Amino acid sequence: MTLTDLQRRLRAFVNERDWERFHTPKNLAMALAGEAGELLELFQWLTPEESQQVMSDSAKAKEIRHELADVLAYVLRLSDVLEIDLPSALAEKISINEGKYPTELAKGRSDKYNRL
Amino acid sequence: MTLTDLQRRLRAFVNERDWERFHTPKNLAMALAGEAGELLELFQWLTPEESQQVMSDSAKAKEIRHELADVLAYVLRLSDVLEIDLPSALAEKISINEGKYPTELAKGRSDKYNRL
Amino acid sequence: MTLTDLQRRLRAFVNERDWERFHTPKNLAMALAGEAGELLELFQWLTPEESQQVMSDSAKAKEIRHELADVLAYVLRLSDVLEIDLPSALAEKISINEGKYPTELAKGRSDKYNRL
Amino acid sequence: MTLTDLQRRLRAFVNERDWERFHTPKNLAMALAGEAGELLELFQWLTPEESQQVMSDSAKAKEIRHELADVLAYVLRLSDVLEIDLPSALAEKISINEGKYPTELAKGRSDKYNRL
Repeated sequence: MTLTDLQRRLRAFVNERDWERFHTPKNLAMALAGEAGELLELFQWLTPEESQQVMSDSAKAKEIRHELADVLAYVLRLSDVLEIDLPSALAEKISINEGKYPTELAKGRSDKYNRL
Repeated sequence: MTLTDLQRRLRAFVNERDWERFHTPKNLAMALAGEAGELLELFQWLTPEESQQVMSDSAKAKEIRHELADVLAYVLRLSDVLEIDLPSALAEKISINEGKYPTELAKGRSDKYNRL
Repeated sequence: MTLTDLQRRLRAFVNERDWERFHTPKNLAMALAGEAGELLELFQWLTPEESQQVMSDSAKAKEIRHELADVLAYVLRLSDVLEIDLPSALAEKISINEGKYPTELAKGRSDKYNRL
Repeated sequence: MTLTDLQRRLRAFVNERDWERFHTPKNLAMALAGEAGELLELFQWLTPEESQQVMSDSAKAKEIRHELADVLAYVLRLSDVLEIDLPSALAEKISINEGKYPTELAKGRSDKYNRL
């Protein structure tokens, strides 16, 4: 399934429930941040090492899959209502970051180069 | 470009900079929530109506495209390091929500049915 | 009860449960953001007007009181482990903002002056 | 300075700038989550150990003080517009948590007892 297929399926889901009125960009940005917060909570007390083993617990793995899916759902809804072409937005952002963080300077450092 | 292509490009970006060590699931969940917070700030003082017109201001539109791309980037990184198949996770979550929010009950209501 | 009293009570709560090891600044910043996300979710589908009436529903009011208390709890814990004097940090930040947003320019505008 | 003093000072700050119209509970909950996200970003690439040393770098320490002050400012604004008595809300929440996480069961465990 492509991003566009998933977006179309989400749009139908919202449409059938008459929920477009709630899906203003403002509300969707809130819902996205709320879901990102729920995902965050699944990791908050884990050590870095525990966080790397998290998928070996199947109940935890399922929760994480679902929360990450929720975040993606709102990313797709927001890009849909704002008519943003996500793959091209991301490709553009990666190019910008390649210019901003040249490999020879950024290598192994997170101090100055602390964004993706 | 498919999700998988974008994921591969992000992985190469991280790999060339020796940044895998920073990309633990815990840190990526934090970075994702941080970017979701930045996106949120672009909408916080807008009325619902203003939020619907936000893309007509080209400077604002560019910021929003970039912040949304940042969020997607971390969704892709996190699913990559956790080996989560995103399209199938989302398809599964949509099916769950279809069962949870039957159209006849959920129609036009956000009170009980307040998740995507 | 003063901030310092509440901080002391929270410290005892954590101490009695042997939870200091989990309360690194990094983890507390995550927990704070997670609670802020839960609070956010209580407002996400409300219109601005509905959000102003939210305390007239007593069940909702209780949830909001509790989520806001959770956020404050982590603000207090974080300032405690980092030894930040909160009242003086906030007084300092207000002075900075007074210089940054002079009343004659900022009056009634959220466009340029979009932070507290 | 007490919480009430700080709240009064923030209220005057907002009032002088005619910003009450922007300070709906919904918008304040967004601003609070946005500031929590900024604070989070200061910790995202740090190891737990680095996060414990973060105040020894004075530039970093200043940023953290200011971001934490921003979070507190919105906690105070939100409690002000919603007329929530913060100290009593927090005292109440601590009592609830004392019942929920008895020391003999919660001691040293973050697995089941993963909230404050």
